[in-house]
Amino acid sequence: MSAPTISHLGIAVKDLDAAIRLWSLALGRGPSLVTEVADQKVKVAVFPAGPTGGGRIELVAPTSPDSPVSRFLATRGEGLHHVCIYVDDIEAHLRQFKSAGVRLIDETPRLGAEGHRIAFVHPSGMNGVLLELEERSGKL
Amino acid sequence: MSAPTISHLGIAVKDLDAAIRLWSLALGRGPSLVTEVADQKVKVAVFPAGPTGGGRIELVAPTSPDSPVSRFLATRGEGLHHVCIYVDDIEAHLRQFKSAGVRLIDETPRLGAEGHRIAFVHPSGMNGVLLELEERSGKL
Repeated sequence: MSAPTISHLGIAVKDLDAAIRLWSLALGRGPSLVTEVADQKVKVAVFPAGPTGGGRIELVAPTSPDSPVSRFLATRGEGLHHVCIYVDDIEAHLRQFKSAGVRLIDETPRLGAEGHRIAFVHPSGMNGVLLELEERSGKL
Repeated sequence: MSAPTISHLGIAVKDLDAAIRLWSLALGRGPSLVTEVADQKVKVAVFPAGPTGGGRIELVAPTSPDSPVSRFLATRGEGLHHVCIYVDDIEAHLRQFKSAGVRLIDETPRLGAEGHRIAFVHPSGMNGVLLELEERSGKL
């Protein structure tokens, strides 16, 4: 298996518009997309990867008090929220984690917002990091 | 300015050896380098970027109770610690942040472990994210 690549990094924020202004300054450009993910009750601003294909940076703000991101903000405050890595075979990855006793949020893959198969690994199993796996389709 | 690219993502951990075993499973390979950064009183395990050049993942464990990472672990616990992005002109970036009233840790660049110019932006100014800027030298 080749070394996985960072798909994106999620940052939990309270005020999406203010955060977009700030991160546009940091990243030298505005977001390529601002969209709502109804499933997760969040709005997301996507800053695309640079020309060499590194990961995207996504600002994530809750649209409802019962969004998972609202719960994160209430307990941890704003900050780095999750990292998503591409994997070749998501089911093989989940099996390996399970054999190693790592706690999973998703025992089986589900469809992400962009139609790829994704699964979350619980932070308690990964040094406090909420890890998302995303199955790459074809060559990156 | 081109869109900045993620240089690396730092994860604060307590037990480096245990974390290396876990993240080797997640990333499908072992670290390419395990080294001590005396300046920061940390040991770092570096998992290189994938073949498409995305960012590295670095596990960071303190070697002393007065390491900045020990303080982070005491207050926040293990988890995502910082993100580093490449920038073309680090001084121009710092000036822009300063004009926008963003709090800086480093007002002027300093030399990082690998000899590149780096500077940290304070998490209080960046939605709780400890942001590192790294000046790229030549083409990535």
